[in-house]
Amino acid sequence: MLPANEVWNDVEAVRARAPLVHNITNYVVMNLTANALLALGASPVMAHALDEVEDMAAIADALVLNIGTLSRPWVEAMEKAAGAAARKGIPIVLDPVGAGATRFRTETALRLIASRKPAVVRGNASEIRALALAEAETKGVDSRHGAEDAIDAARALARRTGGAVSVSGPVDIILDAGGLIRVANGHPLMPRVTGLGCVASALTGAFAAVNPSPLRAAGHAMAVMGIAGEMAGRRARGPADFEARFIDALFAMREKDIARLLKMETA
Amino acid sequence: MLPANEVWNDVEAVRARAPLVHNITNYVVMNLTANALLALGASPVMAHALDEVEDMAAIADALVLNIGTLSRPWVEAMEKAAGAAARKGIPIVLDPVGAGATRFRTETALRLIASRKPAVVRGNASEIRALALAEAETKGVDSRHGAEDAIDAARALARRTGGAVSVSGPVDIILDAGGLIRVANGHPLMPRVTGLGCVASALTGAFAAVNPSPLRAAGHAMAVMGIAGEMAGRRARGPADFEARFIDALFAMREKDIARLLKMETA
Amino acid sequence: MLPANEVWNDVEAVRARAPLVHNITNYVVMNLTANALLALGASPVMAHALDEVEDMAAIADALVLNIGTLSRPWVEAMEKAAGAAARKGIPIVLDPVGAGATRFRTETALRLIASRKPAVVRGNASEIRALALAEAETKGVDSRHGAEDAIDAARALARRTGGAVSVSGPVDIILDAGGLIRVANGHPLMPRVTGLGCVASALTGAFAAVNPSPLRAAGHAMAVMGIAGEMAGRRARGPADFEARFIDALFAMREKDIARLLKMETA
Repeated sequence: MLPANEVWNDVEAVRARAPLVHNITNYVVMNLTANALLALGASPVMAHALDEVEDMAAIADALVLNIGTLSRPWVEAMEKAAGAAARKGIPIVLDPVGAGATRFRTETALRLIASRKPAVVRGNASEIRALALAEAETKGVDSRHGAEDAIDAARALARRTGGAVSVSGPVDIILDAGGLIRVANGHPLMPRVTGLGCVASALTGAFAAVNPSPLRAAGHAMAVMGIAGEMAGRRARGPADFEARFIDALFAMREKDIARLLKMETA
Repeated sequence: MLPANEVWNDVEAVRARAPLVHNITNYVVMNLTANALLALGASPVMAHALDEVEDMAAIADALVLNIGTLSRPWVEAMEKAAGAAARKGIPIVLDPVGAGATRFRTETALRLIASRKPAVVRGNASEIRALALAEAETKGVDSRHGAEDAIDAARALARRTGGAVSVSGPVDIILDAGGLIRVANGHPLMPRVTGLGCVASALTGAFAAVNPSPLRAAGHAMAVMGIAGEMAGRRARGPADFEARFIDALFAMREKDIARLLKMETA
Repeated sequence: MLPANEVWNDVEAVRARAPLVHNITNYVVMNLTANALLALGASPVMAHALDEVEDMAAIADALVLNIGTLSRPWVEAMEKAAGAAARKGIPIVLDPVGAGATRFRTETALRLIASRKPAVVRGNASEIRALALAEAETKGVDSRHGAEDAIDAARALARRTGGAVSVSGPVDIILDAGGLIRVANGHPLMPRVTGLGCVASALTGAFAAVNPSPLRAAGHAMAVMGIAGEMAGRRARGPADFEARFIDALFAMREKDIARLLKMETA
């Protein structure tokens, strides 16, 4: 199957099945994340209370954990929800927002990874590096990280989770033990809108609910993100107008948009 | 008075008096809800701390409780605020988001209803049904719910609260012991924007602050929601553009928009 | 230096240095605040956990505290973060949202002021008045507040903090022990968008990170707010469209926009 067909198949599957994506995410992006999932065709739900996260995960098709504005009770809820998700066998996506910036974030992300083996860890290069280095022999050299460096870190992390790792950047790198996908879609305004990384993680959850390969699900999510960004960027006046056009592009995306714009390579 | 005049009178009253609507609501919709209330002409305030909810409810003109991202401390704050609202005699609107999805949500909504008799309970058909069935003899049959089924559930719930129940859907049903209103306004993009149900509950609070009949307040709120949706939908590019146009329609709505578009029936 | 040059210099400094602004703010405005800081060129971070606020403040260039949806654990985090900010010597901006509305808010703001001497307190006239009067001999007269009244309150508060006080209104007043700035920029739609006051405080943090004078930083922030508002208001369809255009104006603002529109007076 052509790569564009694979991506489109997953988009159609999300639209047809409307998978329920349970998000325990940060306050900043909850609204945007929910709207992105709705625009794609998925069903978002946000729930973080210890009293209900297990019940919610038990009716969900994917669980997305995001530590962007974490605190102890939320972390406890993430662990409980992840347990229910593991028992049910639905994919868990972890977004380690800010790993490396504070010890609390790094350690929380590492603990979630150690106990629950997320199907996909999705972050930017510095977050993935922080998690990979935290338990590796550190080389004492931390400067001038290139794309190859990010690949090494992602590989090290993937060995620990047994799943896929998705590193966003000018070229997104998605890999697991068996394969590597590069996605070169995107737009320069994307880093100027808060929460688009978190949206990428949420969409990864939706794709993981319909595609049994975490690697492909994560790769297709990044492709759809980037293509929607390119569609939005064509006429955007600035970052706020871009954000609205990005959501509307997720909603309107057709097979021919993917066929025309996709820049995805599988190695 | 013609129905369109009644609706317009309430819009003008909200714009003239700018009622203070105290919201204890979910994280996902706080921003949108506040902007919708401002656009309509009301004054929103969000406050959930146990230390201040009574003080805030005591200066408010309506209290809106929404359990969309509930947790124990927030539920406790809702109960305390509802007590202050009851003492002051201002209307309480309850949005039982996700009732039926988890036991925590169903039980929290039922407890708030039992202790504080909200003037209006506003939800979708499945939430209202979950609350009505939870304490009724269950018939063991739960499939193929039609609009008539939602009416029966709403009636059962209204008997328990002594107030109005507002069920949103393609045709909104609003009823109390004495009357029934149907509103057929709306737009297919509305369910693709997160939080428009929560906005409906918040606007119901604003209308209940200026109209002593919970039934009419709730009906007029749904009419204004639906009309703003139709105004927004005319030129919307997609769900994000629709959301912005919806807020701007609330702000710009004139008497003639209501006269021309209103599809409200009173039985 | 001409006033317009001073303002532009600070905008360029923010864009060049991308100062990290640590926000402990309210749920309603987190997304908008982060997007405004990004559009201006700063780097926003939101973090409120007791476990990490000190680590985060220690890598930040400014700390913004906003009590818009406060609760005890958040207030405790604000105090801890403020301690770390003081030790590091970075500016603290306090937005006392709702001071005067409930005792919890007034007392929390006063305690933060007493213990940590914020470089800038930024609020509307009624908030600043509530804080100034709370510990002053009250004159028993509280009606018909004019602009001069707000100046007296701001002066009283500035004497207590030793820093600047920024009062937003049709004409913004920014003062400290040594000077007073008036900014007459702005647009009538600004109060119809939730959280633009909070955005003003966040931008004040970004400017305070690059300008050592809290008075000027606060004045320049209000000038940029008002100018972006005027740029946005020119074609805005309503408050939601205005909000998006406001963010895009922050992103697009050029030296000549400031030169042409600035209405700032220094006394």
